[in-house]
Amino acid sequence: MTGDLRMCFIGDSFVAGVGDPLCLGWAGRLAAQAFTDGQPLTSYNLGVRRQTSSDILARWQHECDQRLRDGADLRLVLSFGVNDTTHEDGRTRVAPDESTANLAEMLGRAADRGWPVLMVAPPPVDDTEHNARTALLDERFARVCRDASVPYVPVHRPLLDSAAWMREVRAGDGAHPGAGGYDEIAALIAPHWRDWLSA
Amino acid sequence: MTGDLRMCFIGDSFVAGVGDPLCLGWAGRLAAQAFTDGQPLTSYNLGVRRQTSSDILARWQHECDQRLRDGADLRLVLSFGVNDTTHEDGRTRVAPDESTANLAEMLGRAADRGWPVLMVAPPPVDDTEHNARTALLDERFARVCRDASVPYVPVHRPLLDSAAWMREVRAGDGAHPGAGGYDEIAALIAPHWRDWLSA
Repeated sequence: MTGDLRMCFIGDSFVAGVGDPLCLGWAGRLAAQAFTDGQPLTSYNLGVRRQTSSDILARWQHECDQRLRDGADLRLVLSFGVNDTTHEDGRTRVAPDESTANLAEMLGRAADRGWPVLMVAPPPVDDTEHNARTALLDERFARVCRDASVPYVPVHRPLLDSAAWMREVRAGDGAHPGAGGYDEIAALIAPHWRDWLSA
Repeated sequence: MTGDLRMCFIGDSFVAGVGDPLCLGWAGRLAAQAFTDGQPLTSYNLGVRRQTSSDILARWQHECDQRLRDGADLRLVLSFGVNDTTHEDGRTRVAPDESTANLAEMLGRAADRGWPVLMVAPPPVDDTEHNARTALLDERFARVCRDASVPYVPVHRPLLDSAAWMREVRAGDGAHPGAGGYDEIAALIAPHWRDWLSA
């Protein structure tokens, strides 16, 4: 519990909360819950649609430098990967080795700045083969985070088993859920987020 | 009404919604209302604490270029100025002529990209002299927008007269309201925003 907590949520469309009619996404739900828990904060949502880990690597630091200047407790939450494992022109948009290298690079730079990081796994979409590729990346990301002593939130498999998530994804654009799905992923992240904030 | 509306809200801490326990701010309230009105959108909140118009001018385009790539209807909402008129070291952080030049420069660049803009006035804080300086900047900003045929939302004076806004600002950190104040400013902006979206 600190008096001036500032946090950047960095990632893709799932971080941005695309499809959520409440316009909070899981990041907004966690931030609002923190206020309820007596921990006000300044949260910056830096999720961008269609972005891969390579796209994010190219911009995140500049955007965070704008936002994490003052404040006593500066933190990052990362989540990406679904766009990396998307097939385009007969191959994934980003090769798995490059995805893991991108994550490792970001964790290293965040450590240099002294910014604690929480990493959230890429969620499933309505495409079994795509999800199988993402599940492999999920395992790689978990290892990178373990090696860097960064907490990793393994939401991928629980969401595959979540009727609410998968139903809303199918009913939506095939990738993004509605409010119920964002409730679900926020609830999965919440205990890890609380542990991380109080560590 | 379009099928793929994407919007960046660019500005300062009031845009970011600092102090709002619901973590929506006025930008999030307007975006959620759009969903309710049958106009889903992707909204990106690019408000940053402490930033003046000069700070924002230096970063907004790079950040918007990351976000306004796809989509059929790409738009900007701007709001800044309170940090420009803050006194530091015996003078305002940004001189009024520079503030208006910064706004004009942003409007020109947005027009070059074909991005329609809505500009929202800087709101009042709990400091009469600061508000007097902001009220003068408000008038200048209104003129710049009129000259550029950009709609301008004059929230400054109505919020000075708003008991809810001023009470929450005083009860908070002297600058930012809570949920009730953000409700109030969102309600003032909403009719202008709807006209602008349907224009």
